[in-house]
Amino acid sequence: MYKKLPTRAENFSEWYNELVKRVGLAENSSVRGCMTIKPYGFAIWEKIQAILDHAFKETGHENAYFPLFIPKSYFTREAAHVEGFAKECAVVTHYRLKSDAETNQIIVDNEAKLDEELIVRPTSETIIWHSYKNWIQSYRDLPLLINQWSNVVRWEMRTRLFLRTTEFLWQEGHTAHATQTEAEQEVLQMLNIYADFGKDYLAIPFLKGVKTEHEKFAGAEKTYTIEALMQDGKALQAGTSHFLGQSFAKAFDVTFTNQAGQMDYVWGTSWGITTRLIGALIMAHSDDKGLVLPPRLAPIQVIIIPIYRTQEEKAAIQQQARIIQEQLRTHHIIVKFDDRDEHKPGWKFAEYELKGVPIRLAIGPNDLANHTVELTRRDTSEKIVIQANQLVGQVIQLLADIQNNLYQRAHQFREANTYAVNTYEAFKEAIAQKRGFILAHWDGTTETERKIQAETKATIRCIPLEGTPEPGKCMYTGKPSKQRVVFAQAY
Amino acid sequence: MYKKLPTRAENFSEWYNELVKRVGLAENSSVRGCMTIKPYGFAIWEKIQAILDHAFKETGHENAYFPLFIPKSYFTREAAHVEGFAKECAVVTHYRLKSDAETNQIIVDNEAKLDEELIVRPTSETIIWHSYKNWIQSYRDLPLLINQWSNVVRWEMRTRLFLRTTEFLWQEGHTAHATQTEAEQEVLQMLNIYADFGKDYLAIPFLKGVKTEHEKFAGAEKTYTIEALMQDGKALQAGTSHFLGQSFAKAFDVTFTNQAGQMDYVWGTSWGITTRLIGALIMAHSDDKGLVLPPRLAPIQVIIIPIYRTQEEKAAIQQQARIIQEQLRTHHIIVKFDDRDEHKPGWKFAEYELKGVPIRLAIGPNDLANHTVELTRRDTSEKIVIQANQLVGQVIQLLADIQNNLYQRAHQFREANTYAVNTYEAFKEAIAQKRGFILAHWDGTTETERKIQAETKATIRCIPLEGTPEPGKCMYTGKPSKQRVVFAQAY
Repeated sequence: MYKKLPTRAENFSEWYNELVKRVGLAENSSVRGCMTIKPYGFAIWEKIQAILDHAFKETGHENAYFPLFIPKSYFTREAAHVEGFAKECAVVTHYRLKSDAETNQIIVDNEAKLDEELIVRPTSETIIWHSYKNWIQSYRDLPLLINQWSNVVRWEMRTRLFLRTTEFLWQEGHTAHATQTEAEQEVLQMLNIYADFGKDYLAIPFLKGVKTEHEKFAGAEKTYTIEALMQDGKALQAGTSHFLGQSFAKAFDVTFTNQAGQMDYVWGTSWGITTRLIGALIMAHSDDKGLVLPPRLAPIQVIIIPIYRTQEEKAAIQQQARIIQEQLRTHHIIVKFDDRDEHKPGWKFAEYELKGVPIRLAIGPNDLANHTVELTRRDTSEKIVIQANQLVGQVIQLLADIQNNLYQRAHQFREANTYAVNTYEAFKEAIAQKRGFILAHWDGTTETERKIQAETKATIRCIPLEGTPEPGKCMYTGKPSKQRVVFAQAY
Repeated sequence: MYKKLPTRAENFSEWYNELVKRVGLAENSSVRGCMTIKPYGFAIWEKIQAILDHAFKETGHENAYFPLFIPKSYFTREAAHVEGFAKECAVVTHYRLKSDAETNQIIVDNEAKLDEELIVRPTSETIIWHSYKNWIQSYRDLPLLINQWSNVVRWEMRTRLFLRTTEFLWQEGHTAHATQTEAEQEVLQMLNIYADFGKDYLAIPFLKGVKTEHEKFAGAEKTYTIEALMQDGKALQAGTSHFLGQSFAKAFDVTFTNQAGQMDYVWGTSWGITTRLIGALIMAHSDDKGLVLPPRLAPIQVIIIPIYRTQEEKAAIQQQARIIQEQLRTHHIIVKFDDRDEHKPGWKFAEYELKGVPIRLAIGPNDLANHTVELTRRDTSEKIVIQANQLVGQVIQLLADIQNNLYQRAHQFREANTYAVNTYEAFKEAIAQKRGFILAHWDGTTETERKIQAETKATIRCIPLEGTPEPGKCMYTGKPSKQRVVFAQAY
């Protein structure tokens, strides 16, 4: 039997790390900062991919694939971009190894040194805009709506499974438009696709907003973000959508002939989400018994566990379980039947609780006699015994209820942990005692933002899009503020 | 209007390169040997992925993701593997860039040198078996059936779009088993999945066989291959499935307790296909007018082209075209309607012929009056005029016919270009004049194999699995031969 998980109250961070490993979602590899995503974790990523990929295609985007390597010189083209990105990255300098005759070891062949070093992509704006120059001539080539699913590498000093890893998986959309308005609409459209995905699938309410100048993407004119609140009161940036203006078009000389026959630079956007979303999913819903997964993203939605003493009982239950399995599958429910002899039912109950399977279906000899089954919800631990002939309808309803309940719970948690403060004293106290999303007035300067961060570790997560902006006075400097912004400590 | 493609007869190689670029399947990037896969080419890869991924899952495999980087020392663990793989590869030596104060350029920060260099994976056996050591303890953990879709890098000197690129996309299956028999069954199962995929989707007959010692995968005990014949008579290795024996288990110390309670090393397999399959698809079926795609892998299956003079005619045709589009979509047919005004019908006909769309559907004013449409097959250029109310059934039938015809054509081509020779003179003449698959006796030695290759550029593609082996005498040395093997010049 497993030893107990650390609880969230004891140590949220250890609870998270231990949970990820014990469930078998991912593990640290022997390569510094790089994780291995194990099958159960990857199955969640595959679902995220399938759903978002469909949403991207429905809105006219196509997938493509650009090279992993970017020539070093490309990074210097867009001045702000190089400042933000070209620092911590994996640099390929050689293209051959050889056996060393003296030591009999494999060493780098110094004769195979690249003329220009290659950077393993930390993001692909530069190499993609380099291509777009040749792909775009006329307004008829626009909009160009491309997405890429790929791996990227950013040499992170402190890493945590899913939340911050040197290599991670993501999607990066890169679009080019004839007009500013159209590009701005695209940026908001993709932000909304992410937010809807959060609500409908991850069961997480995402706060939509704009990043400050200090926090925006290097090379963007404006960065939109979706921010989630975790159970420990810290914020997590779950995705971003950037309005690039004409910055990359100018850096890579991407012009087009508009309908009036004039040359102009195109307008760009980029937007992405990463495997970090799996970290968000875990920290938003899970509890001290293990993972809690929203049914729409669960690799297994229903686990059937037989309870038997004799092999005769097992055989009779197996027969019934297979009928149930088939019924549920017909209704596109992902169901697994665990009839392994080597583990007792109690062990299996704990195992699938740990794995976050939304519904546990137990069948014992009494159930067979009474034509019943016992269903247990993972989110509330509530048990119900139902007639076997009502199973399909009940399971469908229960999956929908669980999905909805997780969202409501996360939404209530956010409501309960979002509050306004008016003084810096109250702000510091709130951050120290309960964290959460703190709405406060700020004078709009990077200087103040930095000071607050240095003193409290809280950053401005975003300038919220919703609600009516009301002016006030900066809690730190007393200078005028146009509206409250959202502060939090963040992952 | 486009200038004409080079013909296959004139210059097969130029025809291929030009076709790939002109269709917009892929292009060379500015990074040496790395290609950009453009949306139309990537859409074919997505179909290949979806179909194979489903077949892998149906046979119990799960996807996972292992790191891009492999510590240099891992390659030295398996002796044969390092000989075959650790030579030409991308080596990461540093993890930071910095601004050079003097030149104002971005340079590699020499203070950020890695203690141990990282290799960008050329294949993942080493890092995966390193993980498997911790994942496998008992026979209950077996079989372990894992697949990964990823990018890999091999520093190739001569590259060609899809066929051989420095970075390419692929899937790599890596499985571990309790017994030799089970591992061998897995190897053959995956080979058959590839061969069936070739027949049912790519419409290419794959020859199944075993690689010679000289040609097998570095680290495998036995490599199975599927070999395809291209229209220029050259062979293309389309996929491989390796029986690894216990070599990687021993190199990475992966042991398990078997049912009898004894410790043993596990048995391994690995198997993969790559974006090269898109090259095979192109070279197997396409013609001098452009791409010819099997309907089951075509990103667009039916293109509707309106023929009109006036805007009134256009409006009426549009209405009818949208009804047709909807009808076909209901039957899961991928259909596009090209009603752009800026191009004439003739231009569009040539465009979609170039793009290999299986069926062209044209509607003009007469068709409207007569309730007809005109269908043109891409594979035979045959035209039929049908009643609009018979459309769906006809299109479904036609797509199946085209799929089948492409396979039959490729099969007949292979039959016509496969022949036995008994003397080395006849062999040299055949290779020089018509290439193809040449069945010949060989004495089983690497020495002879190398000499024949040096003199004729032909390699042994495989020792075929089908047919009854008949002994004979090696065409080169006269020594005894157990059976004919398949020679060809290859990509």
